[in-house]
This record gives sequence, C-alpha cells and structure tokens, in this order.
Amino acid sequence: MPDLALQARLDAWRARVDAALAHALPDPDSPPRRLHAAMRHAALLGGKRMRPLLVYAAGTAFGANEESLDAPAVAVELVHAYSLVHDDLPAMDDDALRRGQPTVHVAFDEATAILAGDALQSQAFVAIANATLPGDARAALCAELASAAAGMCAGQALDIDATGQASGFDIASLERLHALKTGALLRASVRMGAIAAGADADSRATLDRFADALGLAFQVRDDLLDVEGESATLGKTAGKDAARSKPTFPALIGVEASRARLDALAMEMRDALSALPVDTSALAALARLAIERDR
Amino acid sequence: MPDLALQARLDAWRARVDAALAHALPDPDSPPRRLHAAMRHAALLGGKRMRPLLVYAAGTAFGANEESLDAPAVAVELVHAYSLVHDDLPAMDDDALRRGQPTVHVAFDEATAILAGDALQSQAFVAIANATLPGDARAALCAELASAAAGMCAGQALDIDATGQASGFDIASLERLHALKTGALLRASVRMGAIAAGADADSRATLDRFADALGLAFQVRDDLLDVEGESATLGKTAGKDAARSKPTFPALIGVEASRARLDALAMEMRDALSALPVDTSALAALARLAIERDR
Repeated sequence: MPDLALQARLDAWRARVDAALAHALPDPDSPPRRLHAAMRHAALLGGKRMRPLLVYAAGTAFGANEESLDAPAVAVELVHAYSLVHDDLPAMDDDALRRGQPTVHVAFDEATAILAGDALQSQAFVAIANATLPGDARAALCAELASAAAGMCAGQALDIDATGQASGFDIASLERLHALKTGALLRASVRMGAIAAGADADSRATLDRFADALGLAFQVRDDLLDVEGESATLGKTAGKDAARSKPTFPALIGVEASRARLDALAMEMRDALSALPVDTSALAALARLAIERDR
Repeated sequence: MPDLALQARLDAWRARVDAALAHALPDPDSPPRRLHAAMRHAALLGGKRMRPLLVYAAGTAFGANEESLDAPAVAVELVHAYSLVHDDLPAMDDDALRRGQPTVHVAFDEATAILAGDALQSQAFVAIANATLPGDARAALCAELASAAAGMCAGQALDIDATGQASGFDIASLERLHALKTGALLRASVRMGAIAAGADADSRATLDRFADALGLAFQVRDDLLDVEGESATLGKTAGKDAARSKPTFPALIGVEASRARLDALAMEMRDALSALPVDTSALAALARLAIERDR
C-alpha cells in the first residue's frame, strides 16, 4: 500500500474515533455542565490518537470491521485522557500546558479536574461493557483495559518515587517503570484490537512482542523530545524532566545510546510484524510515527 | 429467620468480603509499596460494608452461591473506597478523618491519594471482568458498575455546584443529586447481586424500587446524623454540612419532616420486598441498618 493511501487510512480512523468520542462523552448542555465541559476539554482537544489508531490497525489487520472497533478505540483514549488530567494536577506533575491547551485544572479548577479524570475512567468501561460484541469479548476487553489502567497507576507511582533520584536509578528499573506507565495502555490497545477481531493466540503473542517494543520506543522518543524539543512544537513544557532530575533514557545512558536503542526497538517491531500472517502495513506506519514524531 | 441468625449471616458476609478485599488488593510488600499501602488503607480500614452486603443479600435471595458474589462484592466496595479517597482531598471536601482514621492524603500524601483512588477504581473492574461467571454476566456487571461510577462523579459535581447555595436549592434537585451521588452505587450493588444470580426482569424492577428508596433513605439518615451526631461516633467530622451551607434534607425541609420522609422510605422498601417471590430477610435487615445506623 502506498504511503498516501496509508496516511488517508490513519486520518480516516482519527476522524472516526473523534466522532465516536464526541458521541460517547456526556452532553455539554446537560448538568453537571462544568464537569461535562471538562471531560470534553480533556478528551476532544488535540492529541495524536495513537492508542485508538493501534486498536483500529491491530483489529482490522485481523479482519474486524471498523464499527466493532469504535468502542475499544474510544475506551483506550478515554483512559489515556483521564491519566493526563490527573498527571497534570498540582499535586502530581503540576503542568499548565497539554496538547497546546491549558490543562483541565487550569481551564476549570482542581476539584473539577479530579472528578473529570475519574468520570473519564468510568466512561471508558461504559463504552466497552456495552459494545456490540459477544459477552465474552466485552468481558475480555474490560479485563484487558482494567489491568492496563491499574498498571498505569503503579507506573506513575514508581515515577513519583523515582523523581529526584535520577542518579540512583538503573536502566532495568526505568524500563520496568515505563512498561507500566506508558507501555501497559499501548499494549492493551493492540490487544483490544486483537480481542475484538478474535485473533489466534500465536498472533496475539507476536502482537505483544510488537506492542512491548512500541511502548518502550514511545517513551525513549518522549525522553529524547524533552531534551531536544521546543515547548511550542511539543504542546507541553520541554526540558522539565532534567529540571526535576527525573530518570530518563538520555540521563541514564546518554543521547546517542538512546537513539541507538530506538533503532534497535524499530528493528524488533519490524521483526514481530513480519512474523504475522496478515497485512500489517498500518501497524508498521504507527511504529514509524512513534519513533519519528516530533511531539 | 430470628434476628441473631440474620446478624450472624451479615457478620459472615462482612468477614467474607474483608478476606476477598485483602486478597484482591495488591501486595503491600511489592513495589510501588506506598501506593499499595494507601490502597489498602483506603479499602481495608473500617467501613460498614453496606454495598457488599447488598450484593450478597440480593444475590443469595435469588439463589446465587456466595463464591460467585465475592467479585461483585469486592468491586462495589473498591469503587466506594476510591470515591471516599477522592472526595476527602483538599481540593474537594478537605477532610482529615474518615472511618475513624486519617484520610489517605493525610496518612500518605496528596499525589498518592489521587493515584490510590484511580487504582482502586481500575482494580474494581479487574475483579468483575475476571470473575468466574459467564461472559455475558461479567460484561453486564462491568456495564452496571461503570454507569454507577460515572453517575457518582456527576452527583459529586452537582454537590460541589450546590455547596454554598442551600437556599436556592429545591428538594427535587437534592433528590436528583443524591440519586446519583449515593444512590447509583447502592442501586448497582443490589443489581449486581441480581445479575450474578440471574434474577428475572420483573424481580429486578422490584429490586430497583427497593434500591432507589434505600439510596435516598441512606442519604436522609446521613444528613440527620450530620445534624445530630458526634464526630467520635461518626468516625468523621460532624456538623460540616451546615458549616458549608450544603443543601441537606434537614436544611431544606427541617429535621421532623426529614424523619417522616425516612419513615415513608422504610415503608416503600418493605412494600417492594414483600412483592418479591423469595426470602428477603437479609435485604430487610440491611434496610433497617441504613435507617437506624448511628454512623
């Protein structure tokens, strides 16, 4: 498939999940209006939609129709959005800018941001528990998302414990942290696409290998962007990791070794995808996006 | 059934859900230890276990075995515990005392409290999505809990909007607020017991009538306790509603009319239970507990 057609496919999925998100979120004109506006601010403004795209790419590769993937695509993005709202809170990372917009506690207030995050997590499970899929698949989707969401909290807690301790942290601990904090939901996104499609166990194991490499690559790229990027392009504050002595890949192994690690992960993803018996061009495009993105 | 035997049954269910909760929560000795300790502090210390008891009472009334009710019983308590942790945060109700213990952000810190609440919600869905029940039932349990959890956030948002506006609030708005904030999860507890038991649609509708009255009665009693109770007995700060001009039943209709309302709700619950074709003595005992409790 030529790159332009592939690009159009990703754009169509983005438009698709945006519409599904707008539909899944509570009406901004019904009370409590402030809460509903905050939820929509968090989930609808900006964002690359990487996780929903992974759901569509993995699901359609294994023969699922796009309609059956809308609910899991919505759910992973809602969980992602909730986690950003809470991570940005004053008691956590205390960030004022996200996706080029004021963060929810800045645009609204702290209580509303806490509640909006909570409600976004609940709404994610509303979406998949009520999807038009067999009961077993809906339960499996809930189990997958719930484990990933619990893992994210553990990863964020490890991250908080590690902040200010960049020097006493080794690379294995950093990878474990990110496997939970960022990796768990990216992996769940791929898995949920595969669950909705009813992919076989062998393929699922190979997809896990792809998703694990993707999750790590995503974070290495994030760390490199924080060193190299500019706030205007990033849509969030650059250079904040170093300022806080947060352990990052560049801080632990240097910028050059981090770039080399990214190359190795790209190869690992290509290997995994080439072992799958289906058309993986969309997954490959997302892998490239994760590695080459500038925000 | 004589009251002593009934009391023993409730006590056995309390012990049962406490054991199941301790098992469902992450190991306090595995990292992130601070997060895990906070989750256990929130869910294991104190609490009346009203919601799990409703799951067991409704479920066993319709023939479910207790084993199949453990997961939904754990899940409703985890969601309840998460909501208390977040409600107590400085940006929300800013409470230092809960269930006779320091609140989570006091015993730990604010970031840990936010994360512990988030993780408790996720863990609730882990519990029911992986329960040993058919896929359809697990998906239905997730759908029920997710709707209730989303409703709780809406109720809490309405409550925040209403604080300081006791005078401009009418009784219908107050009931709507509590139907979401407290009622949704109590109703879900009853429903989840019925779902696990495979109760028929007619019985479920009657159970809803019981649960709606119970939810409201629970809140009227709570409001009366805040006026009449003492902090030491309550295990939380008394008199705080009036201090904040929160709309409450006593504030809107007076203490006597609130007590009369409680009597009417008790009658409504008895009516609903007597219309059910099964032994409802445990549900009746829980209705009495909700109305007569002193904390």
